[in-house]
Amino acid sequence: MQLHDFSSVVLQYKVVCFDAYGVLKNHKGIIPGVQNTIHFLQQHNIDFYILTNDASRSPQQLADGYQQRGIPEITANKMISSGMMAWEFLRDKVDHGTVAYLGTSRSAHYVEDAGLKTVSIRDLDIDHADSINALVLLDDEGFNWETDLNKAVNLLRARNIPVIVANSDYTYPTSRNQVAIAVGGLADMLEKLVGKTFIRFGKPDSQMFTFAYNHIRQEQEIRKRDILMVGDTLRTDILGGNKFGIDTVLVLTGNTLSLKAQQMIERTGIIPDYICQSVVI
Amino acid sequence: MQLHDFSSVVLQYKVVCFDAYGVLKNHKGIIPGVQNTIHFLQQHNIDFYILTNDASRSPQQLADGYQQRGIPEITANKMISSGMMAWEFLRDKVDHGTVAYLGTSRSAHYVEDAGLKTVSIRDLDIDHADSINALVLLDDEGFNWETDLNKAVNLLRARNIPVIVANSDYTYPTSRNQVAIAVGGLADMLEKLVGKTFIRFGKPDSQMFTFAYNHIRQEQEIRKRDILMVGDTLRTDILGGNKFGIDTVLVLTGNTLSLKAQQMIERTGIIPDYICQSVVI
Amino acid sequence: MQLHDFSSVVLQYKVVCFDAYGVLKNHKGIIPGVQNTIHFLQQHNIDFYILTNDASRSPQQLADGYQQRGIPEITANKMISSGMMAWEFLRDKVDHGTVAYLGTSRSAHYVEDAGLKTVSIRDLDIDHADSINALVLLDDEGFNWETDLNKAVNLLRARNIPVIVANSDYTYPTSRNQVAIAVGGLADMLEKLVGKTFIRFGKPDSQMFTFAYNHIRQEQEIRKRDILMVGDTLRTDILGGNKFGIDTVLVLTGNTLSLKAQQMIERTGIIPDYICQSVVI
Amino acid sequence: MQLHDFSSVVLQYKVVCFDAYGVLKNHKGIIPGVQNTIHFLQQHNIDFYILTNDASRSPQQLADGYQQRGIPEITANKMISSGMMAWEFLRDKVDHGTVAYLGTSRSAHYVEDAGLKTVSIRDLDIDHADSINALVLLDDEGFNWETDLNKAVNLLRARNIPVIVANSDYTYPTSRNQVAIAVGGLADMLEKLVGKTFIRFGKPDSQMFTFAYNHIRQEQEIRKRDILMVGDTLRTDILGGNKFGIDTVLVLTGNTLSLKAQQMIERTGIIPDYICQSVVI
Repeated sequence: MQLHDFSSVVLQYKVVCFDAYGVLKNHKGIIPGVQNTIHFLQQHNIDFYILTNDASRSPQQLADGYQQRGIPEITANKMISSGMMAWEFLRDKVDHGTVAYLGTSRSAHYVEDAGLKTVSIRDLDIDHADSINALVLLDDEGFNWETDLNKAVNLLRARNIPVIVANSDYTYPTSRNQVAIAVGGLADMLEKLVGKTFIRFGKPDSQMFTFAYNHIRQEQEIRKRDILMVGDTLRTDILGGNKFGIDTVLVLTGNTLSLKAQQMIERTGIIPDYICQSVVI
Repeated sequence: MQLHDFSSVVLQYKVVCFDAYGVLKNHKGIIPGVQNTIHFLQQHNIDFYILTNDASRSPQQLADGYQQRGIPEITANKMISSGMMAWEFLRDKVDHGTVAYLGTSRSAHYVEDAGLKTVSIRDLDIDHADSINALVLLDDEGFNWETDLNKAVNLLRARNIPVIVANSDYTYPTSRNQVAIAVGGLADMLEKLVGKTFIRFGKPDSQMFTFAYNHIRQEQEIRKRDILMVGDTLRTDILGGNKFGIDTVLVLTGNTLSLKAQQMIERTGIIPDYICQSVVI
Repeated sequence: MQLHDFSSVVLQYKVVCFDAYGVLKNHKGIIPGVQNTIHFLQQHNIDFYILTNDASRSPQQLADGYQQRGIPEITANKMISSGMMAWEFLRDKVDHGTVAYLGTSRSAHYVEDAGLKTVSIRDLDIDHADSINALVLLDDEGFNWETDLNKAVNLLRARNIPVIVANSDYTYPTSRNQVAIAVGGLADMLEKLVGKTFIRFGKPDSQMFTFAYNHIRQEQEIRKRDILMVGDTLRTDILGGNKFGIDTVLVLTGNTLSLKAQQMIERTGIIPDYICQSVVI
Repeated sequence: MQLHDFSSVVLQYKVVCFDAYGVLKNHKGIIPGVQNTIHFLQQHNIDFYILTNDASRSPQQLADGYQQRGIPEITANKMISSGMMAWEFLRDKVDHGTVAYLGTSRSAHYVEDAGLKTVSIRDLDIDHADSINALVLLDDEGFNWETDLNKAVNLLRARNIPVIVANSDYTYPTSRNQVAIAVGGLADMLEKLVGKTFIRFGKPDSQMFTFAYNHIRQEQEIRKRDILMVGDTLRTDILGGNKFGIDTVLVLTGNTLSLKAQQMIERTGIIPDYICQSVVI
């Protein structure tokens, strides 16, 4: 397995898209040295964006997290989240009524911003659910898993409504060795139990890459070959970037451990263009 | 869809195996008329057993439930549960150490009866899990879904141990229109998240039918053609009975609604030998 | 199930995207009356495109089929095929070497147009496959299923290369009651057997809708709410259109039979905005 | 990864069940030294059986293959095949009419021995299929994959009949580095395409282990702890043996390569009691 130096790779591109968790951040906070990488990009006129499967916070709140930790360059307009994809869908396809959601009240931001009324599954009276026109899975927190997952199953048996999964990750790291089940993992279980087809947003789906591409092209003329995707997860970041037709870097600071990277690439057939230890320069 | 009268069907057999939930019981208790059916069987010297995907109670406790509701003929030796299959596995293949479990402390009976120490996932210290030699999924109650399902995922990342699913049902009815997620549904999610192969007991797996068959043959000479399986669920009762080579009756008092029975049989290709409205005679 | 008149629906939009098979064509050829529908659209200044999961022919060859059957208005620039998505991927991500393919030599057009050398799996010597840099599944015809599917499995065991599925349909109709397995069905089997993740193009993937959208916007200013997707298949046309945020019409002239449409919508949870008997006006 | 000597392991048991392919045989024929192992077992009064996912030949024909290659001790009554399970099912549950099959005419033996008429899918007229009461998948040879798999799909769309898979293996080795798709792999594709639930026989299903156990107990009193299963495949031999409650040995002469054995055990969570290089003593 050949490791490349991130600085030599990144200098070949005009725009870099970073995954957030496992690339810029980990369970302890910002990965040391990331600030330096951002400065390096700016010095070399390389633009950057953050593509994150996160629907738990608004773009502004996501950016605030970086700014409060010493990286003022990461502003809300640099953030492209799977929650924004869900917001577009709700705006375009669910034009009235109330949307039920699984997640924190903070995550309901995306639904309310689309002009829709919201009700947490926690507060839903399943016997009076006739006005519910969609169910959105936003976050793994903010509800009681036992009572509210059961309530979601019964809602979907009673009402034939679209179900939107705003984050298709299965798990996320909570410490060096441990993970937690993400809302995408809960979504898979619910989908199988009710036998319906949910609508998933977030990497590897190309819709998020397309959104980023169109966003970037409003600022500058760019070709796909000038964009680099940097991620820690083969199944989302690398598969999604490859499929969209841009070059990809796997970093070893998150989900894919150094010792298992080569083995996982061979097993899955998901092949990054480069492997770097981290984005630290 | 041709409906048969249960009494005319059952008179062709020497032994009847009933599923419990949706056949003899529902969310309100014993289905009215079931007591009469049991008497009918006794009058005609037809033996009976109850094959249930239930690991939440011991056979004695399961039988007590019927006896307290007016059917003294249903004794512990009539009960054949998926929990008993799990108990056999633990006895034969996990001969020392501690077994972690998801379920109520009552359901841990099966593990303790196999001579093993138990610890509820609820009480497990994940950082001191070296003595855990198996994980058993017994019941959907008795633990906190959010904290304890996450703990189970991390246990299976840290320890390569067998995982036993003692009830492979996905859901169970809680009222006329509503269901709850069963431990088999949670098991499917965990299995996918950790990427390992769990060991499942309970219908449709033939191990439970074989256990019943051997059990019955200790009492009387019997051929498979003399045994009838009666159930409300195509995927478990009917598929399992068919595969084991015995005749099957679908009843419409549980999971399979009258209006959808024909459609579900055509869609799944799981074909009962008979359809009866109920076991009531 | 409420049926709408196609003409009254289509007048609300500026652009219509049609699926081909089951909507404009069937096993007998062009569906009678489709020519009239095309004229109706032109009279009302409604633009149209054809979005087809077809990689067996070039856009020009696809258009020729309509022109020879009396619809000269369907020209190559109206055709948007999953093969064009595969072509983009190959151009951007597989920049040298030889691409092996399953399909007719005609279908290899998409690969050769991307500037790559091709070899049919039929002609591949599996012991000299070191120069093969990708495998593309284009069509279910043009090879021997037994020998060449086995050869594909062994190629993917020997070489860790990207696999591109240029048509994700499972089956296609060959007569009023019969279907044939499409290359997307074969792809699913190969993917499971080798345990790798293939890259799929074609509806319901949003990449094809995005391509169409960008294509349309080169000709005119348009919003998503002005585009209508018309298809006969819930899993591809309707799911893909819904997810992309445009309105959808299910027609009953193809995969989804009148008698089963309502039942399939309820079972899958894939809900079209309208149902029309056909596109005939 | 600790390797055990096969002779020291086997001496702890009274009966050994061998998988055939990858354990006793490989693509070149009988593995050198296997004859010696059989003699060793006989000297120590250890009985043996062969449990094979093979429905392409009768038990007698399977045994003939060993006898002609110099192991006269392997007689027909030592062979327990998945084809025998299919035969039992057909005898018990499909009592009249004609059974269509995918496989060689030789493999149709199991169906004909159950007293049923057979027709190869190859010879079936799909428009006159009203008398077909079951479809059995026996072997990957003896039919044209393209025309006859398509015919099987259309048969299952026209007739709601049970489908029996008499060999659930996905692939089998054809040379040191290459494999071929087995009928179990084709079965998975057909099952997904038609959306029905097939009935699978063969390891890891416990029905085959139960059959062996009952067969052995007709000859001698035996407990499960006295039986050892020896196989080269985690997913079938080891999972099946573990679940049935008997001890298991993984050998490295077939599907599971030495270099990857530990990694595959960790990844799948299917844990053999012992690992031996081979059965050669």
